[in-house]
Amino acid sequence: MTTSRPNINRQIVLASRPDGAPNESNFRLAEAPVPEPGEGEALVRARYLSLDPYMRGRMRDAKSYAPPVALGEVMTGGVVGEVVRSNDDALAPGDLVAGMLGWQDYAVAKAKHLRKVGDVEPASLALGVLGMPGLTAYFGLLDICAPKEGETVVVSAAAGAVGAVVGQIAKIKGCRAVGIAGSDAKVDYLVNELGFDAAINYKTAKNMTHALDECCPKGIDVYFDNVGGPITDAVIMRINERARLAICGQISQYNNAVPEMGPRNLFVMVTKRARIEGFLIFDYAARYAEGLTQLGEWVTNGQIKYREDIVDGLENAPRAFIGLLEGENFGKRLIRF
Amino acid sequence: MTTSRPNINRQIVLASRPDGAPNESNFRLAEAPVPEPGEGEALVRARYLSLDPYMRGRMRDAKSYAPPVALGEVMTGGVVGEVVRSNDDALAPGDLVAGMLGWQDYAVAKAKHLRKVGDVEPASLALGVLGMPGLTAYFGLLDICAPKEGETVVVSAAAGAVGAVVGQIAKIKGCRAVGIAGSDAKVDYLVNELGFDAAINYKTAKNMTHALDECCPKGIDVYFDNVGGPITDAVIMRINERARLAICGQISQYNNAVPEMGPRNLFVMVTKRARIEGFLIFDYAARYAEGLTQLGEWVTNGQIKYREDIVDGLENAPRAFIGLLEGENFGKRLIRF
Repeated sequence: MTTSRPNINRQIVLASRPDGAPNESNFRLAEAPVPEPGEGEALVRARYLSLDPYMRGRMRDAKSYAPPVALGEVMTGGVVGEVVRSNDDALAPGDLVAGMLGWQDYAVAKAKHLRKVGDVEPASLALGVLGMPGLTAYFGLLDICAPKEGETVVVSAAAGAVGAVVGQIAKIKGCRAVGIAGSDAKVDYLVNELGFDAAINYKTAKNMTHALDECCPKGIDVYFDNVGGPITDAVIMRINERARLAICGQISQYNNAVPEMGPRNLFVMVTKRARIEGFLIFDYAARYAEGLTQLGEWVTNGQIKYREDIVDGLENAPRAFIGLLEGENFGKRLIRF
Repeated sequence: MTTSRPNINRQIVLASRPDGAPNESNFRLAEAPVPEPGEGEALVRARYLSLDPYMRGRMRDAKSYAPPVALGEVMTGGVVGEVVRSNDDALAPGDLVAGMLGWQDYAVAKAKHLRKVGDVEPASLALGVLGMPGLTAYFGLLDICAPKEGETVVVSAAAGAVGAVVGQIAKIKGCRAVGIAGSDAKVDYLVNELGFDAAINYKTAKNMTHALDECCPKGIDVYFDNVGGPITDAVIMRINERARLAICGQISQYNNAVPEMGPRNLFVMVTKRARIEGFLIFDYAARYAEGLTQLGEWVTNGQIKYREDIVDGLENAPRAFIGLLEGENFGKRLIRF
């Protein structure tokens, strides 16, 4: 199951900064000794690594909400793994924990920075619907957009780890859920397996505005944006008065070396008295327990379904991440160790 | 004082729709009989007509928050005038009233659609600091942006009817007020007469981002936008976390036949957890009295100063309006009859 050798810690480090879309040469497989946990720390062996679009931002040498990964440094990332040794009473060998442990076989972290996964089964869900992506959907939709029963909620990257949960929560709240995704298989999945009311394949839609008109006969009240770019332009042309737009991500823009140009549309915000708000899930840390409890109930009772897109082997993480930025994943993309 | 002849109502009507910037041929001076007030109505003779950027939108044959002016129809606009005849107990000849009476010497309106100006002196203030522009500044800044003491508030078109009030309210609330305007005389006026902490002439600033850095050493917490375009782009590059951007107008865009392109910058909203909100003053109608009372106090005690830019003669309204769109006005632009 694991290809790690004792005492050797394989790591994927940032070898160079991408200019545009990343390629595999931007990453390097390195080896280091397995680290020793200090006081209050634990050593964790990774089982799953989460791959997420935000990681593209960390490869950029620019000030953002988090510092960039330095050249030669291990790529940042969320991991679920098993405690191997612990110098903190809160954790014992065998415990399954989640934390920001990076793209590597082993990592040491302070016990207080690790979250016990508990009886979540499979444990990988702690990186998906019962982890950061699920929480992002939960707070971004409910807190930023406050959808009301009967309203129309549109979500982009709808078959992704965050988008799929957004649409399903919208349905739970009595909204019309409309997804935008990049393949017919994803559209079929959203409508026929997850219960979205409608979905659009943006790659084959001849005219996004017309497609939105068909799927949103009463206009758009809430937009949960993961992608930005022309898809978001089209949505903005169809928002209703008092629309709320939560900006979660802009994956269509992450590989741009210079900002892409798009039509200026702020005046629509005036005519529609609409609101655009960006958010970061970390700001909701004090409420994670609330979100995880509710998401757990919904997953247990079948109101929220999930799909994982698992790639085996740390050595395949760079290619899997590059594919994620191109939208090739179908569900939550993970590396299994 | 007035050039109107008895029984003749001069009117400026929309002759054709502009393609890009309006020119005088888009307007026509027409004559009609002075109308007769019906039951519950009053006949008003105009003293002042307000010229405002939103009127450009009404010349466009496009669905917006208000219907367009039809070809041949009198241009829409706010007026302060004197009641000549009244068929409603609420109004008597001689009363000064404000209402949406259009670009014409005389108009009939339902008494309930007219607001008594009271003892406002000069009466023209009911079209400026004690009218729609003042209310727009008041609710747009305080309600949408909720500035806190010590925060930095930037306002574009700062020497205009709305912007000048925004900056002065920001000062009253203990904020740092920074204005953006289009001439050195306006910059001087903002800083030395209205008490702004700093102001930028965007026409001569070599680099708006650097100019903002100099004027906003602690970044930008609140932006009240009247203009849009590259000025707003530069501001967005310098917003702080949790910044609030109220979109009031986008005058730089109103003459565009097709949307101008600009750099996509929604991801900044994510990294800064910032909010953009458009608003229309009409949505605050139930609270106008509150706003007018507070603004009146501030004007009376000298905490808010105002400046009027008066052009004589209805026949000059088209040229004065075209100039307003080009930023040639210095203060609240009015037509005096």
